[in-house]
Formats: sequence, C-alpha cells, structure tokens
Amino acid sequence: MGSNIKMNTERIKGDISILANIVDQDRPLYTRRPFTGEYLKSRKWLKEEMEKAGLTVSVDAASNLIGERKGSRPELPPIMIGSHTDSVVGGGRFDGIIGVLGGIEIARQLDEQDVRLEHTLLIVDFTAEEASEFGISTIGSRGMVGNLNKEILERVNHDGITLREGLEQLGGRPSELEKEKKKNGDISLYLELHIEQGPVLEQTGHELGAVTGIVGIRRYKVTCHGQANHAGTTPMNMRADALAAASEVILSIEYVANQSYSTQIVGTVGRLFVEPNASNVVPGKVVFDFELRSLESDVLDEAIENIGQSIDSIAVKRTLDITIEPLSVSDGIIINEDVVEGVFHSCQEVGSSLRLPSGAGHDANQIASIAPVGMVFVPSQNGVSHSSDEWTDYELVTKGIQALWNTLIYFDKQFK
Amino acid sequence: MGSNIKMNTERIKGDISILANIVDQDRPLYTRRPFTGEYLKSRKWLKEEMEKAGLTVSVDAASNLIGERKGSRPELPPIMIGSHTDSVVGGGRFDGIIGVLGGIEIARQLDEQDVRLEHTLLIVDFTAEEASEFGISTIGSRGMVGNLNKEILERVNHDGITLREGLEQLGGRPSELEKEKKKNGDISLYLELHIEQGPVLEQTGHELGAVTGIVGIRRYKVTCHGQANHAGTTPMNMRADALAAASEVILSIEYVANQSYSTQIVGTVGRLFVEPNASNVVPGKVVFDFELRSLESDVLDEAIENIGQSIDSIAVKRTLDITIEPLSVSDGIIINEDVVEGVFHSCQEVGSSLRLPSGAGHDANQIASIAPVGMVFVPSQNGVSHSSDEWTDYELVTKGIQALWNTLIYFDKQFK
Repeated sequence: MGSNIKMNTERIKGDISILANIVDQDRPLYTRRPFTGEYLKSRKWLKEEMEKAGLTVSVDAASNLIGERKGSRPELPPIMIGSHTDSVVGGGRFDGIIGVLGGIEIARQLDEQDVRLEHTLLIVDFTAEEASEFGISTIGSRGMVGNLNKEILERVNHDGITLREGLEQLGGRPSELEKEKKKNGDISLYLELHIEQGPVLEQTGHELGAVTGIVGIRRYKVTCHGQANHAGTTPMNMRADALAAASEVILSIEYVANQSYSTQIVGTVGRLFVEPNASNVVPGKVVFDFELRSLESDVLDEAIENIGQSIDSIAVKRTLDITIEPLSVSDGIIINEDVVEGVFHSCQEVGSSLRLPSGAGHDANQIASIAPVGMVFVPSQNGVSHSSDEWTDYELVTKGIQALWNTLIYFDKQFK
Repeated sequence: MGSNIKMNTERIKGDISILANIVDQDRPLYTRRPFTGEYLKSRKWLKEEMEKAGLTVSVDAASNLIGERKGSRPELPPIMIGSHTDSVVGGGRFDGIIGVLGGIEIARQLDEQDVRLEHTLLIVDFTAEEASEFGISTIGSRGMVGNLNKEILERVNHDGITLREGLEQLGGRPSELEKEKKKNGDISLYLELHIEQGPVLEQTGHELGAVTGIVGIRRYKVTCHGQANHAGTTPMNMRADALAAASEVILSIEYVANQSYSTQIVGTVGRLFVEPNASNVVPGKVVFDFELRSLESDVLDEAIENIGQSIDSIAVKRTLDITIEPLSVSDGIIINEDVVEGVFHSCQEVGSSLRLPSGAGHDANQIASIAPVGMVFVPSQNGVSHSSDEWTDYELVTKGIQALWNTLIYFDKQFK
C-alpha cells in the first residue's frame, strides 16, 4: 500500500482557493455554472494543472476533461477517478471540486514519487453534474456512458443555446457520443471523493465514509382539491380545507419515513403551493411535491403504499379529492461489497471511518451502469452543501485524498 | 305593518342587471372598483334612480351618496338603510349591491304607495366598502363616523392618487370630515340587507337570516424556523423540518376551532410560504398567517391561548423555534337583542328565517360605533361570494327587500 505518501495540504488548499476565485461575480458566492465564461476559464486552469502533473489531457465527446497517466499494463481497462467542478447558483467550494482536485493531487504524487500503476489512470472533470437548465443533471457522465439522447441535446437554455452547442463550446463532439460511449468492461473501477452533503459523519464523530450505495429517488406530485371559501362565513363543519388536508398528508409522509427502522429511508415535502393563498380564504387547492429516498426498492415500494393508504383515508375523512402522480423514478445503486470493504479499509488506515449510504446522486450513478464504482466521503460541517457556508476542514479534505490514494493503490493490485 | 306591500321582482332584477353591465371590461367579471370611471358612471345612475324615487340626493364629506326622504317627525334622528356598490376584482352582482338597490326600491314603494314614515329615511351608497389599495376597507362608513384619520387620507393608490383626492373626485370634502361626522344619537337605527357570503342559510334550508352580530377577527403571523437541509442526505432524526412543524400547527388551529362547541368560532390558515420551496431541500422556514373569528372575545382569548400552548409543545418536541405575532384585531359586534328580534320577526313574516352571526365585516361595523344596527341576510348559492359565480335567486333578493321593508316599518313605530 502507498499510505506512506503524504498529501500536500497547503497545495490542496491553494487549489481550492484558486477555483473559489473563478466564479460569477454577479451572482451569489460561489457560482460557477457550466457553459459560462468562468467555467471555460476554470477548465483552462484545470487542464494546465493536469499537464503539470504529467497527465495527457483530452476532451471527450461529452466535453469531459480527461487527464491520462499510462499504466505498466496497458491491456488492463483504466481505473478512473472523477467528479465535477460546476456548482449550483450560490454553491460551495468543495462539492465536486475536491474530487477533481484530489484526482489531480494524486496524479502529482504519482508523478513526483515516480509511482507506476499497473492500470492506466484517468482523472476526469465531468461536465455539468449539477441540475442544469437543460432539465437534467450529470450531463458529462451521462454522455460518457451513452445516456444523452438526441431530444435532450436539442433542449435550449436561457441564453438560447442548445445542449449540443454548449457541449461543442467546451470542446465536445456531440455527434461522436454514440461512437465514443464507454461500455461494460471499458473501465476497471471508478472512484470518487466527495463531501457527504449531510450531517452523519460529523454527528457520529467520523472523519471518513465508505459509501455503501447511492439511494434511489422517487418523486411524486400530490394535489389536494378542496373548496375555496370565505374564511369568516364558512363554519368549520362546512369546509373542504385543502391546506389542512395537505398538512395531514405531510405528517403521514414524515411518519412513514420515521417508522422504517430496518433500512434507512427519508421522505421530504420540500415544495408546496397554496391557492388562492389569501389570508381570508379557506385554501381551495394545495399542490406539493414529495420525494422518498432509500437504497432499497422494496423499502420504497412499501413506503409509497403506506402513504397512498394514508392519503386515501385522509381524503375520505375530509370528503375531498387528493390525487398523487409519480414524477420521476431513479433507481438506487448498491455498491459491490468487495469495493465497499476495500474503500472502508483504505479509509480506516487514514482515520475513523463509517460505512454509509449516499443520500445524493453523483456522477458515480451514471458510471455504475458500465463499471464497479466506489466512493469516499469527507464530513460536511453542519451537513450543509449547495451554499456558500459549505465547509470541510482542509485536514479532512487531505485525509479524503489520502484515503482515495490508498483505495487506488489497493485496487490497482486487486483488479486484474 | 306594511307587509301587504309587494316588492317588484322584475324591477329589482333589472336594476341588478344594469349595475352588472357598468363594470371594467378589461378585468374579470364583475369588477367595479371604487375611484374608477365605472364607479363614477354607476354613481350617476344611482343618483338618478334615487331622484326618480323621490329622494333628495346629496354627497357627504366622505363621498357617500345619500338619498333622503323626510319623515313626519323631523325632530327624530333618521333611520338609515345602506350598503355599497363597489366590488372586489372579479366580484359578484349581489354583494353590497342588493343592499343599496333594496333601499332604493323601498324608497320607490314609499313614494308610490304614498307611505309617510315618522322618521326621516336615508338611503346610502357607502364609498369603497371592499378592501382597497389604501390598505383599509369600509372607507365611506368610516368617514361618516369620523374614523378616517389624516395619515390614511394621504395614502396613495397604484394610479398615484391619494385617498383624499379619490374622495374629492367622487364629490366628497375630506376637509369637512371632522365637522360632518355623525355622533351617537344622530341616527336612530341603521339597517343593511346583504348576501350571507356563506353556506349556512342554504344548507339549513332558510330563506332569510337575522344577524345576531358581526364576528371579531384576530389575525396572526406564525414563523417556523427550521433548518434547510439536503433532502437526501439528512436522516429523519437529524432534521428540523419547518413545513412538518407548520403542518402540526395548522392542524392544531383546526382542532381548537373544531373543539369550541358552545360558541361558533372559525380558524383558518389561508396563506403560507415555504423557503426555499425546492423539492430536494428540507424546508428551512415556513411563514403563514392565521385568523380566528368569533362574536365573543372570551372565546377568541381562549382559542388563542390553546393554540399558543400547542405551538410551544410542537416547538419543544421538534427542537425548533416557532414565533407568533399578532397582525390585527377587530372587535366583534353583538347586535342589540331587541333589534335582532325585530329583524327576525320581520323576516319570519316573509319566509323561513334563522338567527345567525355574520362571519364577514360590513359597513354596519362602522355605523355600530354611533347607532344601533340591524342586518338581514339572504342565502348565497353554495356559499360563494367575491366571485362571478356569486348568486342569489331574484325571488330571495325580493324577499330580503320585503324583510327590510317590514323591519323599517316596525322600527319606525318603535324607535321614538
């Protein structure tokens, strides 16, 4: 193992600061949206850093920036390390970024320490991981595995450019997507270092996390059809109050998620609209979204069934209609147990570690369709992400990169 | 009693149709906002109709349109009948309107039948009863009783005119408000016919209502301060979900209002805002208004105390802050029992009648500060008002006017 290699915290801190300065000055800190001038500028800097680290840099059909270091056994499919450097509007300095910078730091160390891996190593800055104006997220990793269809490529953003044109501006070749797409067997292993974006590591006192899977997400739209009435002249027993009904449904979703003891599940109502939303009118209609996330489909199935039953009984009791429509389904990923254990023990050599699921989606979701994936988490202070308050101490970022290094060295020997 | 007089349903129907045509053509049916061209036009027509009915027409300092018919005993303070002809945006053809047209119809009947009352009779079209851009409602009746202060008069609407200028455009004399204001003893009795704006008369099978009082309204603002967190990565037991907390509070408000068996009270959460209102973020903050209405202050006091206790225990249980701030208080009016009984028996002579409180405010609220008031309600189809769907059958409107007539004749003899 290569755990005697010491990552350079000051260099990592410097890299994070450089990217934190290449942001849109007219939007909340720290905004670096894909397909913007700042993004092009950051890509230019990343390319230079990759080259300084001895990597051979290219841009693939999906405009992902890829640095390659040849292995001693070029017949083996490469190991790939990646993440993203785009942010949400008003995002943070760590989300995605430490995964790409960590990969570059590992390339530098390999170069400086003159370590030759058996596998070719690819360090990837995936294009546009965050939710975009094109209605999807993980654009670059989708593109790499052939999951960007023509309809999506023709979607237009607020600047009037299509996704196809956006990818071209970044050096991509959308017409080559199909030809270049990676298939099963093309990659030995994909590794990603990421901030947890949740409070679990911090609150349980762990420095590192070995990800056991990425949760599946089911989203639904609920509409409570009540009757708008005058708030003064309609007695309580003559009302069909859509907001009171919605309140019961919201609490039942929370209850169902809380009741699942065996496997973790979360249920959230994040977005809600009241009509007519006037203080002197009994709400006539309430529309809200809810989502359920769990690693296991069975758990999701059971939860949605229980919620459906609650909704039915609330509707009957209150004599109003409540409809529920599925909005989207994304299946969870259970990470291969050998990979989880390899990642976990690599983490344990660096600091106190926990096996935990990822509640958020990542580029790893896409790559999992063609290769085994593994993820290392570092703690997010107060569980905050997608905010300028997002923070992970540099020492912990360094430990994360160290764990990623250990994992790479371990699997370079294991995966033949 | 004068119950042998038959009101003219066709004439009343015609009058309602005429006003339903003097509306803003560029806004939803039926919109006749005060201080607009349509309002001036409808006032011109009303003035002509008053004059045809033998009334002497004037405009008071608050720009209320007043038709006067001298009584045989001019030393007695007048009896006043009134309501309003302005509407909300997209309002109805009956709200307020039938009270003014009913008064004019009564004046016509007195004229045609040559009935001489002992009291002088005033028929009033009060200016701007509905909530206005000046931040208050019942502008004309406020002005009549000296309840329009200088600060309010200087407020500006979207057209850039002050309330003072608006009143002047309607022929009012804002500078004379103080001098002309009516005081205790200036009016013997104020009577108002109005649609119920609620479902009680229809659902209980009554044609007429004798109003027992007008509810007091207390409005509050509640803020649930949770913690915005990633909906995927924050386990259920590490959340401070502001919307789940708000849902519990909403249901507790409904519960408290439902539990009050002795005196009717209604509690409504009509308006609610979620922050950041994104489907993948646990709500960090929810702000909503609620209002409680009841005739009795004690009942309101008790309800708000119970709701406050619920809020405290919800906040403790969920370990988040919930604040409650009073927004406004308007005291209820309990109508003098002799007046309620006089109105009720006058109604009973015409059709099946119910004593009931008014859940909405009226010009009567203002006049009650200087004179006894009485109100007659006619049913609102499906309880709907402030909508183009607002409807009361013309036969019921006619019965309402007949009941108003009976009440007038009865009290003309009683109040000396």
